[in-house]
Amino acid sequence: MIDFETILSNVRGRTPLVHNITNYVTVNDCANILLACGGSPIMSDDEADVEDITSICGGLNINIGTLNKNTIPSMFLAGRRANALGHPVLLDPVGAGASRLRTETAAQLIDALRFTVIRGNISEIKALAQGAGGTKGVDANEADRVNAENLDSVIAFARAFAKKTGAIIAITGATDVIVDGTRACTVTNGHPMMSRITGTGCMLSAMTTAFVVANPEQPFEAVCAAVIAMGLCGEIAYGRLGALDGNSSYRNYIIDAVYNLSAQEMKDGAKYEMR
Amino acid sequence: MIDFETILSNVRGRTPLVHNITNYVTVNDCANILLACGGSPIMSDDEADVEDITSICGGLNINIGTLNKNTIPSMFLAGRRANALGHPVLLDPVGAGASRLRTETAAQLIDALRFTVIRGNISEIKALAQGAGGTKGVDANEADRVNAENLDSVIAFARAFAKKTGAIIAITGATDVIVDGTRACTVTNGHPMMSRITGTGCMLSAMTTAFVVANPEQPFEAVCAAVIAMGLCGEIAYGRLGALDGNSSYRNYIIDAVYNLSAQEMKDGAKYEMR
Amino acid sequence: MIDFETILSNVRGRTPLVHNITNYVTVNDCANILLACGGSPIMSDDEADVEDITSICGGLNINIGTLNKNTIPSMFLAGRRANALGHPVLLDPVGAGASRLRTETAAQLIDALRFTVIRGNISEIKALAQGAGGTKGVDANEADRVNAENLDSVIAFARAFAKKTGAIIAITGATDVIVDGTRACTVTNGHPMMSRITGTGCMLSAMTTAFVVANPEQPFEAVCAAVIAMGLCGEIAYGRLGALDGNSSYRNYIIDAVYNLSAQEMKDGAKYEMR
Repeated sequence: MIDFETILSNVRGRTPLVHNITNYVTVNDCANILLACGGSPIMSDDEADVEDITSICGGLNINIGTLNKNTIPSMFLAGRRANALGHPVLLDPVGAGASRLRTETAAQLIDALRFTVIRGNISEIKALAQGAGGTKGVDANEADRVNAENLDSVIAFARAFAKKTGAIIAITGATDVIVDGTRACTVTNGHPMMSRITGTGCMLSAMTTAFVVANPEQPFEAVCAAVIAMGLCGEIAYGRLGALDGNSSYRNYIIDAVYNLSAQEMKDGAKYEMR
Repeated sequence: MIDFETILSNVRGRTPLVHNITNYVTVNDCANILLACGGSPIMSDDEADVEDITSICGGLNINIGTLNKNTIPSMFLAGRRANALGHPVLLDPVGAGASRLRTETAAQLIDALRFTVIRGNISEIKALAQGAGGTKGVDANEADRVNAENLDSVIAFARAFAKKTGAIIAITGATDVIVDGTRACTVTNGHPMMSRITGTGCMLSAMTTAFVVANPEQPFEAVCAAVIAMGLCGEIAYGRLGALDGNSSYRNYIIDAVYNLSAQEMKDGAKYEMR
Repeated sequence: MIDFETILSNVRGRTPLVHNITNYVTVNDCANILLACGGSPIMSDDEADVEDITSICGGLNINIGTLNKNTIPSMFLAGRRANALGHPVLLDPVGAGASRLRTETAAQLIDALRFTVIRGNISEIKALAQGAGGTKGVDANEADRVNAENLDSVIAFARAFAKKTGAIIAITGATDVIVDGTRACTVTNGHPMMSRITGTGCMLSAMTTAFVVANPEQPFEAVCAAVIAMGLCGEIAYGRLGALDGNSSYRNYIIDAVYNLSAQEMKDGAKYEMR
């Protein structure tokens, strides 16, 4: 049983300060969802700035969505400093498998740094874990989709990748799979319309970092709770949609739902299974 | 008669993947409007990344709104690759005429690449076609405005520019003018309040790219349909505004309207004339 | 008494064109709030572009929120050109005190340029004025907070900093303090929930630049009016929140409120004291 009460109140009470080196597409949504959940965001990506900034934060969220020659070195610098300080570090390998630069940068980051969490869609994680996976841009490939038939094998490959990297692996999609060296959790919260807004993955990565920073006593449960929270807020926001609403209002409603989310709602609405 | 049914269902059924090298001001709105219309966005602007990314996409949207020394070479690299692959490429020359860098970069892109569509406001297109046009920042100059008196001459100069570049030229404003070497279409959908939100032009360029990618059989009609869709959604969204709503809600409502847009609404609401 | 009628109608009637070199986190909100208040935004941050762009604008807003090695030289170039042209220039020293790069860059900008306005939170301004202040990331440190006990000393240090720099100093928080060499104004408009969205400070800086550009006859009052407008719109937007709304809708409502703001609302709702 995940103790949503404790995890959520820690996020809200401890106001985890999260350093984000992230893409410029969804950065505003990442900042607002961090504030919504009870955290506090800082964005900084210059080589001369990131070590100072990450030092005053509680954790680091590295997202390679619009990586470039200036920000890639900053990811390594900030990551090493965060590792040295014992801060949780999350990797969101956006588009790994879609280009050589993305796949290689993600792989090099995993080699060089100690990640607390690696969160991506199934195609991105496959690209990194197996050197395979047919990434269709920044979205998961249909053929890779997690389902009842392949769930055990997905957990097995995620566990192997968790053991290799020492990170909690979170593969998110219609069914989310969170795995560490020994445990696995599947989550079926969420709504298909979440794939019609940009940044649900990026937002989840930012929020997950805050949850892990605020809950050092139980990082695995914190990741599961963040994944559940995001999916549940996708459901709550969907229920709020009017006839004229579309994906832009849906985005706002999801962040709003995170802002208003209670532990009781999580207890009542969570659809997960520990395995 | 534009076949809105076919064009719109192609966008939704073919899920055109669009590579965007675009400005960081309106990038989130561009991503969400691409998802709203039925497309899928990828943003990538590093020299080492853009060729791989554009190769897996169906088309390329180049927007020079916040061009810089790192992204300019990426525009040429991605454009050449997209040309080699036969992908549609759109240019949005934001601020051409407002600075030497913008005017020259747009001109050099037009020299080096084969554009399927060039979309801008009248001042931007004049700056490129005639080396004139008094651009007032990123908005069209009042003196350049398209009206009943100058419409024929605007079509004539746009047609000359279309012939010179081989591109479909889309000049958008209160009256939109879309021209290729032989045809012309004027569109009067839209609402003046659209000029009170940032990014309607950028969003239209992104959406136009998706429409063209999904409708290779009729690119001219696809551009016209995208322009009509944007204007019509501006009208629909305006009708939805409450007393307390302003430009921020209006932006959300426009994207929402694109999400919910039907071919029937387009048939009923389109205000265009083929000439 | 601040003449809200004149100040607001000048912003709406003169459509001040504001050049922004700003961070990519809140840039879209800055553009939309500039349009909401009656101004017009341009973003440009490349060394080869900024001098041309700032020349066609009425004022310059420099925000160091995601400063980097490419944009820092652009800040100096644009600032020198704006100074030479007599344009108002505003500095928003986001995160000064949080990293050496931010503190030093802000200090160097203040040394090299003539600022009309410097706007930040109390910790940022302290870091620049006193070489002290414990900045907690990009938010003000609790210990620095302006209150009844320390108000006189805050005004005194702000006045000394205003005299040293020649700038109007605007320290914003629960109580806002605006100071020039001789006058001081305190503002208590606003709502605590404003701290739960990203970019209220950045948006205020952008809007303040527009107010000052449009009101060269009374820049001090223009800054006060912008600060009051932001706080008041935070109150109006708060009053509009429904049970399901959170910080994302709140952001939209604030920009909407600026769009709809009338001089009468400002007269009725302003909570300020000239000292």
